[in-house]
Amino acid sequence: MTQTIPPSPPCLFIVGLGPGAPDQVTPQARAALAQATDLIGYGPYVARAVAGPDVVRHATDNRVELERARHALELALAGRRVVVVSGGDAGVFGMASAVFEAIDHGPEAWRDIDVQVIPGVSAVLAAAARLGAPLGGDFCVMSLSDNLKPRAVVHERLRAAAQAGFVIALYNPRSKARPGQLAEAFEVLRAVLPGTVPVAFARAIGRPDERVILHDLAHADPEQVDMSTLVLIGCERTHLIPRPQGQPWLYTSRRVDLPVDPA
Amino acid sequence: MTQTIPPSPPCLFIVGLGPGAPDQVTPQARAALAQATDLIGYGPYVARAVAGPDVVRHATDNRVELERARHALELALAGRRVVVVSGGDAGVFGMASAVFEAIDHGPEAWRDIDVQVIPGVSAVLAAAARLGAPLGGDFCVMSLSDNLKPRAVVHERLRAAAQAGFVIALYNPRSKARPGQLAEAFEVLRAVLPGTVPVAFARAIGRPDERVILHDLAHADPEQVDMSTLVLIGCERTHLIPRPQGQPWLYTSRRVDLPVDPA
Repeated sequence: MTQTIPPSPPCLFIVGLGPGAPDQVTPQARAALAQATDLIGYGPYVARAVAGPDVVRHATDNRVELERARHALELALAGRRVVVVSGGDAGVFGMASAVFEAIDHGPEAWRDIDVQVIPGVSAVLAAAARLGAPLGGDFCVMSLSDNLKPRAVVHERLRAAAQAGFVIALYNPRSKARPGQLAEAFEVLRAVLPGTVPVAFARAIGRPDERVILHDLAHADPEQVDMSTLVLIGCERTHLIPRPQGQPWLYTSRRVDLPVDPA
Repeated sequence: MTQTIPPSPPCLFIVGLGPGAPDQVTPQARAALAQATDLIGYGPYVARAVAGPDVVRHATDNRVELERARHALELALAGRRVVVVSGGDAGVFGMASAVFEAIDHGPEAWRDIDVQVIPGVSAVLAAAARLGAPLGGDFCVMSLSDNLKPRAVVHERLRAAAQAGFVIALYNPRSKARPGQLAEAFEVLRAVLPGTVPVAFARAIGRPDERVILHDLAHADPEQVDMSTLVLIGCERTHLIPRPQGQPWLYTSRRVDLPVDPA
């Protein structure tokens, strides 16, 4: 008597590697990486991912997300155990959206692939933790890149978020192709927020070249920011707590329009 | 010859336990928990945390964040190795802000405590990963609770975020004390957004009683939501991808005001 084992459906994992420190990669992400035959992603993330010895690493350049996504889906359909990797969380300006965009406009067969997104510690959460608790109230997360949206939309969103009292986290604040963009963003924000609002530049958090700079909005200098920096702009309820030694803590009070706790 | 070992400074860890699945707790969080003498937090999180056999678990009720924070700081100053625990990420409507608020208004000696915040996978990231990639564009994260901010501020923020094109994630969408709040929020949003915008209810993601419900804004029913549910409201670029089998994927295109990729 012969028994037929049904073939397992093709699957694809999209994995967030966390901000950079190895002890911030979840066990769930590690397990997905360990069973991969192929890793696909932006070069530095593919290089960083810990996987089996026989894994094929497909490192590609930045800005080719859709091509990369289609390649991953083709390999998955061909039976490979593919893991698409992103830094931080793949759902926050990472590869997850590109993969579903590729599926949405791709062949019907791709919809049969069992796509599993494995969340990670995003850069904004790691930066906030390093600084104190700047996200204590409502907050928004934006990409400052105008590759995929008009600059006018970026400015309108900054204005709306600041006026409404959100703390603002900015990804992709600056690149060689767009050196003036962050200065423009600060101009937009200075028209809405007091100059005393705290601004933090959190660079490469969790990696050996980590660096934190604290400013107020009036004095924040875009020249100190590169593409690896997460920029956090506080709201009127965001404060610095000075300390006798060490970096001040940055936090946002959870209360709005109520007297602070008298304790 | 005697040698004096300087006493180590008092320290306090604030740890995000992730959404609930054990394999979504980072190794960094596990290490902090393993060395704790005392765990402090809301009952269910203190119960869930994996720690050493002799650890003292101080489980407290909800809504006593500041008292809990002060207790933790007092124990830390007395030399205990205290870990304050939150679900998800402690910086996102968790205990981190309460601890720094307590320090800000507390005795000077608390500023000498080495406070370390250890980030976790927040509920919004876990929910987004489970759904597909709904956070593919700019997004904001809000608490719908009006314990700490006036309801008018909540509504103004909802309106501003929706008008500006942010995807919106809502924490604390509903409680017994505030049963009508989510219905009000949907009314505010329906005045701004098309009724066709997707809405997702993601309950207890990563836990055994996980449940996902997909709607459009016109038909979203607040009665299906409880305090363990993360509510996600899409923007005009958020789509469902139907599948031959299984739950449709939800994703937000990364592009704004540009034609979609023709592939």
